[in-house]
Amino acid sequence: MSLSQEYKAILDKAIQAVHDRTFHAQYPEHPSPKIYGETADEDGKNAFKSLRKGNFEELQQGGESEWVGEEHSPYFDKPVGTKYPLISNDTLIDRAENAFHVWRKVNKDDRAAVLIDSLERFSKRFFENAYATMHTTGQGYMMAFQASGPHAADRALEAVAAGYEELGRFPESTVWEKPMGKYDLVINKEWRAVPKGIGLVIGCSTFPTWNSVPGVYANLITGNPVIVKPHPGAILPMAIVVAEIRNALRDAGFDPEVCQLAVDTQSNPIAKELAEHPKVKLVDFTGNSEFGSYLESLPKAVFTEKTGVNSMILDSVENLDKVIQNITFSVALYSGQMCTAPQNFFIPEGGVKTPEGTVSFDEVAQKIADFTDGLINNPKAGPFVAGTIQNGATCDRATSAADEIGGKVWLATRNIEQTIPIFENARTQTPTYIELSSSEKDKFSKEMFGPIAFLIKTKDTKESVALAREMAETHGAISCGAYTTDAEMKEYIADEMSLAATPVSFNLTGQIFVNQNAAFSDFHVTGGNPSGNASFTNPDYVNRRFTWVGMREPA
Amino acid sequence: MSLSQEYKAILDKAIQAVHDRTFHAQYPEHPSPKIYGETADEDGKNAFKSLRKGNFEELQQGGESEWVGEEHSPYFDKPVGTKYPLISNDTLIDRAENAFHVWRKVNKDDRAAVLIDSLERFSKRFFENAYATMHTTGQGYMMAFQASGPHAADRALEAVAAGYEELGRFPESTVWEKPMGKYDLVINKEWRAVPKGIGLVIGCSTFPTWNSVPGVYANLITGNPVIVKPHPGAILPMAIVVAEIRNALRDAGFDPEVCQLAVDTQSNPIAKELAEHPKVKLVDFTGNSEFGSYLESLPKAVFTEKTGVNSMILDSVENLDKVIQNITFSVALYSGQMCTAPQNFFIPEGGVKTPEGTVSFDEVAQKIADFTDGLINNPKAGPFVAGTIQNGATCDRATSAADEIGGKVWLATRNIEQTIPIFENARTQTPTYIELSSSEKDKFSKEMFGPIAFLIKTKDTKESVALAREMAETHGAISCGAYTTDAEMKEYIADEMSLAATPVSFNLTGQIFVNQNAAFSDFHVTGGNPSGNASFTNPDYVNRRFTWVGMREPA
Repeated sequence: MSLSQEYKAILDKAIQAVHDRTFHAQYPEHPSPKIYGETADEDGKNAFKSLRKGNFEELQQGGESEWVGEEHSPYFDKPVGTKYPLISNDTLIDRAENAFHVWRKVNKDDRAAVLIDSLERFSKRFFENAYATMHTTGQGYMMAFQASGPHAADRALEAVAAGYEELGRFPESTVWEKPMGKYDLVINKEWRAVPKGIGLVIGCSTFPTWNSVPGVYANLITGNPVIVKPHPGAILPMAIVVAEIRNALRDAGFDPEVCQLAVDTQSNPIAKELAEHPKVKLVDFTGNSEFGSYLESLPKAVFTEKTGVNSMILDSVENLDKVIQNITFSVALYSGQMCTAPQNFFIPEGGVKTPEGTVSFDEVAQKIADFTDGLINNPKAGPFVAGTIQNGATCDRATSAADEIGGKVWLATRNIEQTIPIFENARTQTPTYIELSSSEKDKFSKEMFGPIAFLIKTKDTKESVALAREMAETHGAISCGAYTTDAEMKEYIADEMSLAATPVSFNLTGQIFVNQNAAFSDFHVTGGNPSGNASFTNPDYVNRRFTWVGMREPA
Repeated sequence: MSLSQEYKAILDKAIQAVHDRTFHAQYPEHPSPKIYGETADEDGKNAFKSLRKGNFEELQQGGESEWVGEEHSPYFDKPVGTKYPLISNDTLIDRAENAFHVWRKVNKDDRAAVLIDSLERFSKRFFENAYATMHTTGQGYMMAFQASGPHAADRALEAVAAGYEELGRFPESTVWEKPMGKYDLVINKEWRAVPKGIGLVIGCSTFPTWNSVPGVYANLITGNPVIVKPHPGAILPMAIVVAEIRNALRDAGFDPEVCQLAVDTQSNPIAKELAEHPKVKLVDFTGNSEFGSYLESLPKAVFTEKTGVNSMILDSVENLDKVIQNITFSVALYSGQMCTAPQNFFIPEGGVKTPEGTVSFDEVAQKIADFTDGLINNPKAGPFVAGTIQNGATCDRATSAADEIGGKVWLATRNIEQTIPIFENARTQTPTYIELSSSEKDKFSKEMFGPIAFLIKTKDTKESVALAREMAETHGAISCGAYTTDAEMKEYIADEMSLAATPVSFNLTGQIFVNQNAAFSDFHVTGGNPSGNASFTNPDYVNRRFTWVGMREPA
């Protein structure tokens, strides 16, 4: 296997995009029949149906003690049905260790070729993967297609490009000639990018591929074998990815054990034991802060995306309705189950400035409630934007929030009346907006995962910014939205939030939302606040996966 | 201040050298009158003499509670005499925090200009610094000049070049245009390299500038203010560097508190309190493993060089005498007080292969003893190569090693008879070589800092390599030397040691030694084994000092 012209072109474009950070998408995000074929969606749906019927045999890992699977569709309120091979940790580690000593010696061009090939294979299964994602995460169809398919594949390719670049950062060898007066000292030197060892990638239940493939591909391009351990509630999307990586490895003549799927069940979790295994040198994790922080304390290279408390700062706007439309969509989208969804809306008690005068806090709050209702009540939009709820605990959190937290409820949470008969059992929960005062910090200073948002009355925008910064510094933040028409205030917000390592989206209206995060351009999680220590994909994200070691000898 | 043509040329050359890793030295390593001026040495000696007489006033930090200084010359066996301002940690932190908010907004060209200027100023004081280094660390004159002067300045410049490069890695701003079918989404994006905050650089007593300036300059180029906390036994060399950084800052119109000197005493150490201060976000440390590992456990960006157990593997040689000459010099140089000095000599029980036949273990051991004696007994070489012993505990360790460890003593340690009258009180200790068997792992698996080396009899070279790898993986290693004329064995050693993240110097003879480590070319400490988590200067070494944060807004 070598890097074909076609794959080289894909890699070169990706590398250029990583540098320029301009728009680039290798994989089209629209599930359009014109792009993906007339029968692609139907074929995908049928493929998903057959996957539901039995054992996921594609991996050909072998040696399983039994077949397990606990995925449950929040659309059908029924088990997904797919079963996966349960393989002992020792077997997984032994196979990975053997594969390590082969894969680490494969050059970066060949590694890139295999990995791009696997993405090309995966891209043929985007629709099947979309249905697998919908019925494990509860995402709406469009998000399931985009986030789990093309967007994930782009982020994977970004990691490959970034890793390829870093591996070529220093010369493989050079002649070092030091003038010593009477003669020159001539030393042949070489540098090896030595991969660290077995990588473990632990996935989450809401974005099973998007959050996992960057770590998988970053490990693989830098020569580390990977054990992929998805959340027991959302295995299938990553099982498809791992199967295609193994197919690409096999077809190129490499040991498929370079990438293995490890499954577990809620009652017998294996992530901790795997993470602590001395042969596991790298851990990638998306999930709760408690386990993430524990993992960070291990003496390994650990990359986390944990939780955060995201802020939305309202100061002054050009067009209030467009703003409210945008920010309420951000909360409703996948019912607040995105790590980038805003939670704390900081609104000055004096109101929000507009060209037509100041709009009071109450008017803004009422508009937020009304626009949310309008979106949810639109049968052609609401159910598709909101999707369903992955975990029943999220529904409980939303329904009990008003009672537990207190504060004026501007909008109560409820279920969506389903207009599509096959989804009549769908688990839904619409956004609730609760008013709090800026003094009630204890109430808004933790992540309330799900469709829960707070409208927090502040003295003024400076207090809003101070609180947003404090939340990010203390509890972490992955995103921040801000609306201001004042250039000085804009720079003030950018500067303050940058000190809390939080990216700010200013004045978004229309078809771009604070939740969104583009491969090859937006860094996802910055690594600079408690929401996580990793960033997709900055140089550190790949550099920490291998060690530069020099060898030298007189010529 | 802006980047002058002259400084730009220095920076550009340094950046090129960082990429190419070919030989580059901005600052000549020879203390030659032709290069540095006829009176440079005499002037430096006199400058050092006057510094010994009182308070080190150059810093102009102000606000000191008292003046302290405990440095003791191992050459004179007398106090150095210089006193430094004792300033409270709170004052240091407050000043650094204020300086942070100015310095972080200075662009990278201006930062580079100030830093190169400070190195140019420092270079005018290399001789003064050499004497300051001799009389605090005990190094011989030549090493004191080179390591503390030009080599340190080159490593500092390397960090500036690497940091400058990383800061320019991504565009400051770009226009991101995403085709949306009917229209294009146009977003203005910008990326900020946000420095993390106050940096603390904790120095060691043996290489006070060489080990400290990379962290200082890496912090400064990336926008972080620095508090430099030298070892109380070796303050003066870094006091001179800090004074010149402050002069360069002041002359360029910046707050000199961007770089402060913090001193302490053996009885009242301040490093821990400073490191734990919440405003301190970065810690650079050189020193013992215990404190280094504690620092690594802090939730900060920590860069350590701790201790290691360095191996020398003898398999087969072209010319045994040249090899023994080289490796015994490596141990004698600064009496084994270099972090790169070899300790464990692994020699097969069957002997070392040479073109003239195999030379037995005993013959090799005897040659090692004889060559060491020859070097030490040469009055024109021995005392200058060996220098003196920084810390009395090192002498005790060497003198008691034979009794405590057991094993055949091939060469006993002793003092050097001083031929220079003014150094008649010099504290010296010559290398001791003790034979051990490969089964006595407990005896050779910890660092015996100082002039102590073990001749370890192994079954064969494979066992030598396995032990060298195990030592490096388990206890850390900063260097490894290996002698083999067999290409296959060479690759085997390189591969095995690379897995322990240890650089290997093969077949060194003549005027290059395993201890040596060149700026712009050799990575120092790889970050991949327990000897430390930092590497001078790989991309991580600068990248971990700041965070990429993106801002975006519709155009």
